[in-house]
Amino acid sequence: MDEGLILKLSCPDKPGLVAQIACYASEFEANLVELNQFTDRERGRFFARLEIDTSKLQVSVDDFVAGFDVLGKSVEADWHFRRLPYKMRTAVLVTRTDHCLNEILWRTKLGEMPIEITSIIGNREDCQEMADNAGIPFHHIEMKKGKKTGFREIESLLEAQDVQLVVLARFMQIMPDWLCQKYEGRMINIHHSFLPAFIGANPYRQAYERGVKLIGATCHYVTSELDAGPIIDQEVEPVMHHHSVNDLVRLGRDCERSALAKGIRYHVHDRTIIDDQRAIVFPD
Amino acid sequence: MDEGLILKLSCPDKPGLVAQIACYASEFEANLVELNQFTDRERGRFFARLEIDTSKLQVSVDDFVAGFDVLGKSVEADWHFRRLPYKMRTAVLVTRTDHCLNEILWRTKLGEMPIEITSIIGNREDCQEMADNAGIPFHHIEMKKGKKTGFREIESLLEAQDVQLVVLARFMQIMPDWLCQKYEGRMINIHHSFLPAFIGANPYRQAYERGVKLIGATCHYVTSELDAGPIIDQEVEPVMHHHSVNDLVRLGRDCERSALAKGIRYHVHDRTIIDDQRAIVFPD
Amino acid sequence: MDEGLILKLSCPDKPGLVAQIACYASEFEANLVELNQFTDRERGRFFARLEIDTSKLQVSVDDFVAGFDVLGKSVEADWHFRRLPYKMRTAVLVTRTDHCLNEILWRTKLGEMPIEITSIIGNREDCQEMADNAGIPFHHIEMKKGKKTGFREIESLLEAQDVQLVVLARFMQIMPDWLCQKYEGRMINIHHSFLPAFIGANPYRQAYERGVKLIGATCHYVTSELDAGPIIDQEVEPVMHHHSVNDLVRLGRDCERSALAKGIRYHVHDRTIIDDQRAIVFPD
Amino acid sequence: MDEGLILKLSCPDKPGLVAQIACYASEFEANLVELNQFTDRERGRFFARLEIDTSKLQVSVDDFVAGFDVLGKSVEADWHFRRLPYKMRTAVLVTRTDHCLNEILWRTKLGEMPIEITSIIGNREDCQEMADNAGIPFHHIEMKKGKKTGFREIESLLEAQDVQLVVLARFMQIMPDWLCQKYEGRMINIHHSFLPAFIGANPYRQAYERGVKLIGATCHYVTSELDAGPIIDQEVEPVMHHHSVNDLVRLGRDCERSALAKGIRYHVHDRTIIDDQRAIVFPD
Repeated sequence: MDEGLILKLSCPDKPGLVAQIACYASEFEANLVELNQFTDRERGRFFARLEIDTSKLQVSVDDFVAGFDVLGKSVEADWHFRRLPYKMRTAVLVTRTDHCLNEILWRTKLGEMPIEITSIIGNREDCQEMADNAGIPFHHIEMKKGKKTGFREIESLLEAQDVQLVVLARFMQIMPDWLCQKYEGRMINIHHSFLPAFIGANPYRQAYERGVKLIGATCHYVTSELDAGPIIDQEVEPVMHHHSVNDLVRLGRDCERSALAKGIRYHVHDRTIIDDQRAIVFPD
Repeated sequence: MDEGLILKLSCPDKPGLVAQIACYASEFEANLVELNQFTDRERGRFFARLEIDTSKLQVSVDDFVAGFDVLGKSVEADWHFRRLPYKMRTAVLVTRTDHCLNEILWRTKLGEMPIEITSIIGNREDCQEMADNAGIPFHHIEMKKGKKTGFREIESLLEAQDVQLVVLARFMQIMPDWLCQKYEGRMINIHHSFLPAFIGANPYRQAYERGVKLIGATCHYVTSELDAGPIIDQEVEPVMHHHSVNDLVRLGRDCERSALAKGIRYHVHDRTIIDDQRAIVFPD
Repeated sequence: MDEGLILKLSCPDKPGLVAQIACYASEFEANLVELNQFTDRERGRFFARLEIDTSKLQVSVDDFVAGFDVLGKSVEADWHFRRLPYKMRTAVLVTRTDHCLNEILWRTKLGEMPIEITSIIGNREDCQEMADNAGIPFHHIEMKKGKKTGFREIESLLEAQDVQLVVLARFMQIMPDWLCQKYEGRMINIHHSFLPAFIGANPYRQAYERGVKLIGATCHYVTSELDAGPIIDQEVEPVMHHHSVNDLVRLGRDCERSALAKGIRYHVHDRTIIDDQRAIVFPD
Repeated sequence: MDEGLILKLSCPDKPGLVAQIACYASEFEANLVELNQFTDRERGRFFARLEIDTSKLQVSVDDFVAGFDVLGKSVEADWHFRRLPYKMRTAVLVTRTDHCLNEILWRTKLGEMPIEITSIIGNREDCQEMADNAGIPFHHIEMKKGKKTGFREIESLLEAQDVQLVVLARFMQIMPDWLCQKYEGRMINIHHSFLPAFIGANPYRQAYERGVKLIGATCHYVTSELDAGPIIDQEVEPVMHHHSVNDLVRLGRDCERSALAKGIRYHVHDRTIIDDQRAIVFPD
């Protein structure tokens, strides 16, 4: 959908929620183009995502959005409207390897992902050239002179650029708690293993030594606990005994690119709802 | 869901359909447990499937179902209510190989598929023993004495047993038009290739000679045109140059079992809606 | 291959090994139908598997096998000849669920796996009927009266039946060390998670709570350390937020069946070589 | 392997071939690092690929290669030695879309594929910028002024640059017979369907209309017959009823990139042997 609204909502489950929401839309001639809902019966919680065509709306979009407050509050919902078209302001953090960055740049250029890359931030300079070719500002943040200073600089950049999404595209530094919390639900990481297996450093070496027959990558929201945030997407690739650690690194790159691209895609299209430790994902 | 209703519906698209349906349910305290919808914008058609919890319904289920007529007709819908729990009366047609039959029997016994197998019908006797072990009547229909007679006998059996679903589980006879039409939308076949590649006989031999690197199986509704009905599920398996035709047959069995089981599952849970040449599938 | 020999061999790597082995075979007109080799360059170790057609052998098969001793010893090899055709005497241990057992029985009956199932041993009686239908002796070993006694009874059965392979087909008891050691390299387990994730009990519950997007199953050799033996095969299946723990159990069954069947297949065709903590697998 | 030789060979099958080849290598202290063989028993043909470490060779590499003539001829073999390290001189032909080109450039830059891209040739100018960023000459060949002239120009470029491999990376022109024949076994195409389904134009539209549940891409050698050459690799991706033709195009890009990259990889590492209409592929 090119124009319109996306509504994300979660609230305690009770009968009639879909009717209430759909009627609110219908009342003003808003057309539901796509509707996904999920009822977690075990925990009594309702989740929904709606794509709303507003081309024939009888009121202004602003009024439609504002008017939802009454309903939203009455059902004790958390909700969020996104107005289309939009581009999410996104910063990409990198270290040395550029395959994830390349994937993001390529998909963005192609118009697959509605993001505007405000900047590429590297704690090394390896990705400078790729940023230059894409015409995107590259900021080199030197971490060696002190991590605290480095992360404060990163924070300043993100704030100055009004960044809405932070993508860790093989950024090989552990984010400090305060920054994780500040960007909670808005910071996405790609971990190069099939989590929760092989948390932490050198997952491909760990995988090699364990002799697994599949390797993977996990795209997840960043939380204070290392590699433990809500998972958005996971991809795997078969491997064999003759694959060296370097082969796993090579094969794993394809999982990483794919999982990260899907993770970002779902996030920027508002297809994810974080539910405690898990992510609800309505894929397209 | 153990008790309740499933509603399947398709109609010309127009704004407010979800609201109208959801409000009808809400009005009588029917709770929508699961809602899937799809709007085919190109062709202006709306499709939906709803799982409805009727435990707190303010009217009788019969009245609720009957009362939907007004709304259904007003939006020019095709619709269907299924009352849960239910078991779909199913006949399985086989020839020699029994892997698909074994899969169906096993999943049925486990309670994975809400079907009652009324009979196993074979144009050969190879599957008699498996039927006996499962305690299901086996009917041997001899096709050599004349196909016309044979298919009339099959039709009589299906009618006598009030069969709602006919599964061709590697039944190696081409169904006559009149029988295809009679069971349109209620007859499912497993074809041992990745359709539309390798239509007709000996698909594994064809695949071997073409040197493909993946083989597959396709579960589809049976129509008068051979192997051209709406596809419900497709599965593939990688193959290599060293695999003989027999290896492809062996590896293909896993695709066939899996695709057929999913196809039946989606059908009996009313997760499919036939839309001309295509099948809309809301997977679980 | 129906008749002939399979040779499995591992030894320190050095130049000329393939030539030496192939020349030995060639000398007596043994034809190499299939040859797989792997050189672990990091650790300087050579592994090979050969399928040898002996139909034109110039000496007796016994003499051919015996005569290999000189070469085998001179290169400090571990090696093993298997004479075809053969059926591996196999005991299947089960508890309640029967999907893995069903898979093994079906593939065995079909001739896919060259095994003879000597017995099915259950610490519960749930699988008795399936064993009866297949015409295979079922032994109920009561573990409640003491695990030590139970495992001694199992050992006696395995010995009395001269079992060459023990398959734990969802056997929900932890094997004692002494039995693991006795059947080292000859005992295969199916674990219902993508190891090393979710070791131990209730892996599907663990997976649900972690919110993973893929679940899996792992077929591995049993060692004293729980769920840590060499991995033969792993299979995964995508899952979503709306899948309950019971759904994961259902979907996981397909991974379990498939991974276990492949694991057994590779083992009985001598396509595995255990190399410390890892399994080298030459798939067919 | 960084230095050494790769030997590819096919010949009529007979006992002792591996021994003869391995002994030839062993005689001069050439070490077989990797050996893959395949015996097509149905047709009595033997195929092999050997990676040979020549660091301790007792003769010059030239003499070793030349000396193989006697053996090669005596077994009526087609064979080929490749001296490592090498980079295959490769031209990439494109039209408008650049995802396949981007993939090739990225993998080449990373050192994943031992190729040197001599030029990018486009019948449109869309990929000019990407070529420029990569520092590779771009040649725009205008086809509108006459296809014959255009293809002659392409041929001249390929000859002038001494191109060893021609990659059709979504080149939307049908190659003339004479050019197919000239580069037989050295021209690779990516077709955007799961061949042999949906041969010819607009495969994604065809797939959409047929309602398939998986779409795919096929990497194959180009022959005179359209989309019928030996298949090297095939990839698939699941699709659903709600995916439009544009969605299929988007999802298909991932299959295309992956299949083409694997196809090129296998070819340039001499892991393919064309066997009539099929390609034997020894994957790494």
